[in-house]
Amino acid sequence: MKILVINGPNLNLLGTREPDVYGSDTLADIIGRVEGHASGRGITLEHFQSNDEGALVTRVGQTRGEMDGIILNPAAYTHTSVALRDAIEACEVPCVEVHISNVHRREEFRHRSLTAPACVGQIVGFGARGYILALDALIGWIEDRDRV
Amino acid sequence: MKILVINGPNLNLLGTREPDVYGSDTLADIIGRVEGHASGRGITLEHFQSNDEGALVTRVGQTRGEMDGIILNPAAYTHTSVALRDAIEACEVPCVEVHISNVHRREEFRHRSLTAPACVGQIVGFGARGYILALDALIGWIEDRDRV
Amino acid sequence: MKILVINGPNLNLLGTREPDVYGSDTLADIIGRVEGHASGRGITLEHFQSNDEGALVTRVGQTRGEMDGIILNPAAYTHTSVALRDAIEACEVPCVEVHISNVHRREEFRHRSLTAPACVGQIVGFGARGYILALDALIGWIEDRDRV
Amino acid sequence: MKILVINGPNLNLLGTREPDVYGSDTLADIIGRVEGHASGRGITLEHFQSNDEGALVTRVGQTRGEMDGIILNPAAYTHTSVALRDAIEACEVPCVEVHISNVHRREEFRHRSLTAPACVGQIVGFGARGYILALDALIGWIEDRDRV
Amino acid sequence: MKILVINGPNLNLLGTREPDVYGSDTLADIIGRVEGHASGRGITLEHFQSNDEGALVTRVGQTRGEMDGIILNPAAYTHTSVALRDAIEACEVPCVEVHISNVHRREEFRHRSLTAPACVGQIVGFGARGYILALDALIGWIEDRDRV
Amino acid sequence: MKILVINGPNLNLLGTREPDVYGSDTLADIIGRVEGHASGRGITLEHFQSNDEGALVTRVGQTRGEMDGIILNPAAYTHTSVALRDAIEACEVPCVEVHISNVHRREEFRHRSLTAPACVGQIVGFGARGYILALDALIGWIEDRDRV
Amino acid sequence: MKILVINGPNLNLLGTREPDVYGSDTLADIIGRVEGHASGRGITLEHFQSNDEGALVTRVGQTRGEMDGIILNPAAYTHTSVALRDAIEACEVPCVEVHISNVHRREEFRHRSLTAPACVGQIVGFGARGYILALDALIGWIEDRDRV
Amino acid sequence: MKILVINGPNLNLLGTREPDVYGSDTLADIIGRVEGHASGRGITLEHFQSNDEGALVTRVGQTRGEMDGIILNPAAYTHTSVALRDAIEACEVPCVEVHISNVHRREEFRHRSLTAPACVGQIVGFGARGYILALDALIGWIEDRDRV
Amino acid sequence: MKILVINGPNLNLLGTREPDVYGSDTLADIIGRVEGHASGRGITLEHFQSNDEGALVTRVGQTRGEMDGIILNPAAYTHTSVALRDAIEACEVPCVEVHISNVHRREEFRHRSLTAPACVGQIVGFGARGYILALDALIGWIEDRDRV
Amino acid sequence: MKILVINGPNLNLLGTREPDVYGSDTLADIIGRVEGHASGRGITLEHFQSNDEGALVTRVGQTRGEMDGIILNPAAYTHTSVALRDAIEACEVPCVEVHISNVHRREEFRHRSLTAPACVGQIVGFGARGYILALDALIGWIEDRDRV
Amino acid sequence: MKILVINGPNLNLLGTREPDVYGSDTLADIIGRVEGHASGRGITLEHFQSNDEGALVTRVGQTRGEMDGIILNPAAYTHTSVALRDAIEACEVPCVEVHISNVHRREEFRHRSLTAPACVGQIVGFGARGYILALDALIGWIEDRDRV
Amino acid sequence: MKILVINGPNLNLLGTREPDVYGSDTLADIIGRVEGHASGRGITLEHFQSNDEGALVTRVGQTRGEMDGIILNPAAYTHTSVALRDAIEACEVPCVEVHISNVHRREEFRHRSLTAPACVGQIVGFGARGYILALDALIGWIEDRDRV
Repeated sequence: MKILVINGPNLNLLGTREPDVYGSDTLADIIGRVEGHASGRGITLEHFQSNDEGALVTRVGQTRGEMDGIILNPAAYTHTSVALRDAIEACEVPCVEVHISNVHRREEFRHRSLTAPACVGQIVGFGARGYILALDALIGWIEDRDRV
Repeated sequence: MKILVINGPNLNLLGTREPDVYGSDTLADIIGRVEGHASGRGITLEHFQSNDEGALVTRVGQTRGEMDGIILNPAAYTHTSVALRDAIEACEVPCVEVHISNVHRREEFRHRSLTAPACVGQIVGFGARGYILALDALIGWIEDRDRV
Repeated sequence: MKILVINGPNLNLLGTREPDVYGSDTLADIIGRVEGHASGRGITLEHFQSNDEGALVTRVGQTRGEMDGIILNPAAYTHTSVALRDAIEACEVPCVEVHISNVHRREEFRHRSLTAPACVGQIVGFGARGYILALDALIGWIEDRDRV
Repeated sequence: MKILVINGPNLNLLGTREPDVYGSDTLADIIGRVEGHASGRGITLEHFQSNDEGALVTRVGQTRGEMDGIILNPAAYTHTSVALRDAIEACEVPCVEVHISNVHRREEFRHRSLTAPACVGQIVGFGARGYILALDALIGWIEDRDRV
Repeated sequence: MKILVINGPNLNLLGTREPDVYGSDTLADIIGRVEGHASGRGITLEHFQSNDEGALVTRVGQTRGEMDGIILNPAAYTHTSVALRDAIEACEVPCVEVHISNVHRREEFRHRSLTAPACVGQIVGFGARGYILALDALIGWIEDRDRV
Repeated sequence: MKILVINGPNLNLLGTREPDVYGSDTLADIIGRVEGHASGRGITLEHFQSNDEGALVTRVGQTRGEMDGIILNPAAYTHTSVALRDAIEACEVPCVEVHISNVHRREEFRHRSLTAPACVGQIVGFGARGYILALDALIGWIEDRDRV
Repeated sequence: MKILVINGPNLNLLGTREPDVYGSDTLADIIGRVEGHASGRGITLEHFQSNDEGALVTRVGQTRGEMDGIILNPAAYTHTSVALRDAIEACEVPCVEVHISNVHRREEFRHRSLTAPACVGQIVGFGARGYILALDALIGWIEDRDRV
Repeated sequence: MKILVINGPNLNLLGTREPDVYGSDTLADIIGRVEGHASGRGITLEHFQSNDEGALVTRVGQTRGEMDGIILNPAAYTHTSVALRDAIEACEVPCVEVHISNVHRREEFRHRSLTAPACVGQIVGFGARGYILALDALIGWIEDRDRV
Repeated sequence: MKILVINGPNLNLLGTREPDVYGSDTLADIIGRVEGHASGRGITLEHFQSNDEGALVTRVGQTRGEMDGIILNPAAYTHTSVALRDAIEACEVPCVEVHISNVHRREEFRHRSLTAPACVGQIVGFGARGYILALDALIGWIEDRDRV
Repeated sequence: MKILVINGPNLNLLGTREPDVYGSDTLADIIGRVEGHASGRGITLEHFQSNDEGALVTRVGQTRGEMDGIILNPAAYTHTSVALRDAIEACEVPCVEVHISNVHRREEFRHRSLTAPACVGQIVGFGARGYILALDALIGWIEDRDRV
Repeated sequence: MKILVINGPNLNLLGTREPDVYGSDTLADIIGRVEGHASGRGITLEHFQSNDEGALVTRVGQTRGEMDGIILNPAAYTHTSVALRDAIEACEVPCVEVHISNVHRREEFRHRSLTAPACVGQIVGFGARGYILALDALIGWIEDRDRV
Repeated sequence: MKILVINGPNLNLLGTREPDVYGSDTLADIIGRVEGHASGRGITLEHFQSNDEGALVTRVGQTRGEMDGIILNPAAYTHTSVALRDAIEACEVPCVEVHISNVHRREEFRHRSLTAPACVGQIVGFGARGYILALDALIGWIEDRDRV
């Protein structure tokens, strides 16, 4: 089983960026831990980060037939990108949306997710641990689908 | 460690209520599986279900000093209950919000959560499995807090 | 055929509560007249009144397989209760919504019904007579459905 | 007693127009049944249909001193016609608003009625049967008024 | 100089329609008085009333090259008719909007005028006298324009 | 009969201020013409101009028992002053609102009048001539009231 | 193949009405050119213009079984007519919406089309040429549908 | 004179709940002080607290003919309960609304009170002292009413 | 202890202004009674009334170091004055907002207070008595603050 | 004459992406057909597709002096890209906006076009054929402009 | 060259008012520094401060023909004063708007400027230094205009 | 001291793009002048322009520890980019926002800045000169910060 982890804009700055909101782990730290968890469950993980809406759209669009699932933290594009939503729907690969912070406690414009309706589900507010929860959730979802 | 699982209005009907949206497991089935998962991790689980906003508010208010965490599916009260939000903030026990269906794909009024800002995090759209993910998330959150 | 008449908050005060808006009949007077009309058509009628949203949700949820139809005056909960709407959809028993006064002539917030989309139809503004019209409407609806 | 039944735009197409929403009865079928019900109760019925807002306004305006009541299905003009609302108020003849489908289940713009505040009451969602319920409701309302 | 007085929906009912709002003069009474005033100032007056939006649009459209000015009471169409607004702009004949009652004291939806931006000016709230004021205003406006 | 003409903020600049919108007459020119018209009808006219909301409120408040009517151009305060609206209602002297330009053709925020509901009527868009029309309208209104 | 071209309010004034917005061709000129184009493609064309919403609704309603397609410029009724939208849906004849000017560059209220969701497609901003494009588009759409 | 003090959801937690917002007095402390103040003025006080909207509605509904006044802190139901507003209007007993914290400094949704229009007056932001101010205010209001 | 009572626009008209809304006491009557109450508690009272927003802002700004508290009825400026709100925050003197009438029962625009978030608390709807309640509330608040 | 066809995000997936909404033609198929149509009319066609807002903005910006017209399907950026709108205005090359699906039948946020006001016109809902219609429309527009 | 610096409500309190937001310089300190900078560039500076909207409107209105430019900090009136906006447009003297704090970081209602559209430009968030930047900006703007 | 000047989408077209709005200087001209001003003050300047939101986010993210300040003209992304706002906050380098035109005079959607709350201040409407003002403002801000 192959899963792609995608991180959106400014997440390359994790560890130095507002540590009280986002924690002090770097993106490499987090990906390392998720890879450990994945390999323990026999999953191959790939990772992609970009600050570029178009690059994210392109990468999501390429997953059809190549990936079994997507874990996506769209960061700021959660609230503004119709293109990313369309890409998730177009690729027809199950996608789980992750947010590190509890976006419902922040500015009003961060309460609306344009991408969530195109995803299987959403995990919000559990810090870096959210990626591991998302992996478990995604595997479970795929197993249920294939069981039928 | 003691965790309380709270389910709100109409969740007593799970299994018969719109199975294409909510699945065919009854609430007893789900609680049974979560209890299995909890006892495997050495957690004592209690469960409370009510259709009554006031009863839910009262139960949340009693958790202070009694419970280590709450897993809450506020169902319809997610979108209308300021009282439940106030209760979660008042009890100062960490709470994880769960939704069985992906509320972002449903009616506009189900996109807003009044209770989420009072919670630690939110898990949306993974069916009955969401409760198990919430338990893992809550334990992780508590361990992180106590580690510091 | 068994029909349940449900009345929501403050309708226990009918007869004394603002008689120019709601008339001078008590709730017992009205239920008596509806029962007379029902028994004339060979229908068994039950009645339930509560000021409590949760009690109303529970009662609606119990009707599945027990009742052939519901006549519901949700009163103030018409405009605020997502839980009641979910209960009506969950029980899959045909429900007719009744309002004694013409809510469209009153405050703006009384013009929106959260429960009406879950009902078969709505009867508004005919005073206590609205319950009898609702009974006729419900019987007709059931007969049409069963004829097919 | 003389009652005028008025049907608004596109209702001349009943029977062929989206039968799953509006049923397969033609307008003539419906009027025939309402006339049968009316003559059984000793009422003289007149009928008027127009797709034209102005013609409907004019016909309502002529009812003063000529008709004892109006049964009105304003169809699409329900949501846009201030002129029809003004006409109902100007003629001072009691009017009951009827909708064949449950408008609360349809597009957002069909939830607001501009004409309802000028009417005695409203009957929504009972198909062609709604006209017969409206006739009973109107006769009851007139008898109550005249009893005082 | 030729002036056309146009009255919109329900104004044919003046005199009997809600006399406390609109006064007890009939439309004929009012037109008679305006004609008296006009002939005293050497003006030829024509009058047109219709409940029909389309007929009003057509009549306004015909005024180009035929009339020197229009006095228009669009009544209910004030708030809903883009077509009437377009007609006033298309005919390029100066138009004065009149309202018998003070619309700013009535329902919220009567505060917005779709037609006023296409008119020279607006006279609101002076009862039947508003037509005479409008005639004076229109003549003054035309004289000013022609003086330049 | 004594009438007070009140002009609000920036109207002291008439004649030099954006002449294509407001005309080239100074405020003194306009008041002169209105006084001529008033004395021809046997009316005593007073005039007050201020850029100050409080001064306008105070002047309106003093009219009770002193003036028979008010002609008011509230200018920018039309759209923002609850205090001026309260003053007009408090003094119980009939007031006519005048606007030199057609405010409905300008920015959205100029379409709403907070003061109009407290006035007898409104005259909009006829330039300096609007004050003379307002005087005629006010005298007519007072004569009608006193005739009863 | 028979196609009906329908033009809404004020389009009878084309050629004289604001030529910088709508061009200097009359409606007869335009229809002549579309007829030329249609006969070149073997299509029979009919034309209907009315300023009357009801007449337009009626004409659309008659097309079922009589016409193969409709080209509709609803003009001002685009933004206000639920009745026209219902008529297009009721007749089940494919309809293309045309606007001569680019409505997106004009007032805010012209950006919303109530009729477009009931149409096959929309052609906006190409002047009189838009009707010919609409004819080509409609024929193509019908050929595609019939090919399947 | 008999006065009922009613406290809504989560107010049973006073003293432990966010003491920086609500103070460190328990509800028993506060009621004790209000009773002391009341007995000093010869008033009999009763007290009722519930987290349950329905129980609050029922208790308010029972006050007719039994109580001379109500002091009500609806807490979270202030902003969501149409049922409580209807109960206050139905019982026709004068009611004073109290809020311990200054709700205008908190979240936007706490600025709107659904219950205040049904009350005599409102006292906001004075902590536990607000109940004593409310008692004085209510007694004064009743004395004024009975003096007339 | 020195307290300043400030009254905003139109309150100089109390006694004659809409006595059914505001009572028949003049402002001098009210101030006299508040001074009696104050001197009984050993408080020196000053009073300031103005219809002028700027004068009110200036007077509030002067209170720093001069006054121990402010009782403020901002009247119409409650709903429109950011400047008054800024002045209350700038002076850092505790301020209590008073409204004679229950503003929540009046027009929608009177439900929002721009000044309340800058005040300690708010007393609404108790007529002239509200000033005395405000004085008690303010003294209590100051004593509590100084006790700590 | 040189025309540039620009396709926005996710249109590289045409043919596999939701074929019931977008059809089963690939982008290459569509471009091939448009090129055939263009060469038949003596037009040189270039094509550019990108998922990247910035790349689209850059390509539009380069067209000045290089291209005679643009056919643009901005896809998801239609609803979110002010930058693309600014680029179209900046390049001063006539641009036609195309949408494959009827966006008016889809989610509310797809009804608003930020780019359309910067375009000559818009063609919506005719599938792949829309590009050919756009080419005809653009050539016609350019010929009309150059004829003058 | 003569420049007028105008400061609006509460700016007389600078130095003592919330120093963490507005700094500890008094208004006299600031004006002194700006005068130093101005005289160094050969500019005559005048200064005016008022808490009164009317006085500010009057002062702006007097600048025509007297001043070469205005530096304006409208403070709270930025967000509420149509009158000040009209005055700036009426005087036709170039005006630069200054805000000491970054208003975009504060309450929602401070994000909208009613006066900015009437100004040449705006300088926000640079504390007292903003006035000197504004002076440089204004001189540059005037020199550019006069160079043409 | 090192300062980075960043220019957003379409600013590469300066000089040819709508010169009446943006002036006739090219971006190279402007940067040249700012560099002259910077070197005169002993500042090293770097420049970056991109039409790509992601590239701008990346460049801002790299400034931490490398640059002392940023001058940013986000152009169209001002109104739509949450990602750019997050980047400015994440890098913790002081940033000044510049707009060449007075955005408050343009379309409504250009009045809101998503990026301004993350910046130190904003300079709007002074054409190319705005960059020099921004440089002076930024240096002053840094000197003030370092002085403390």
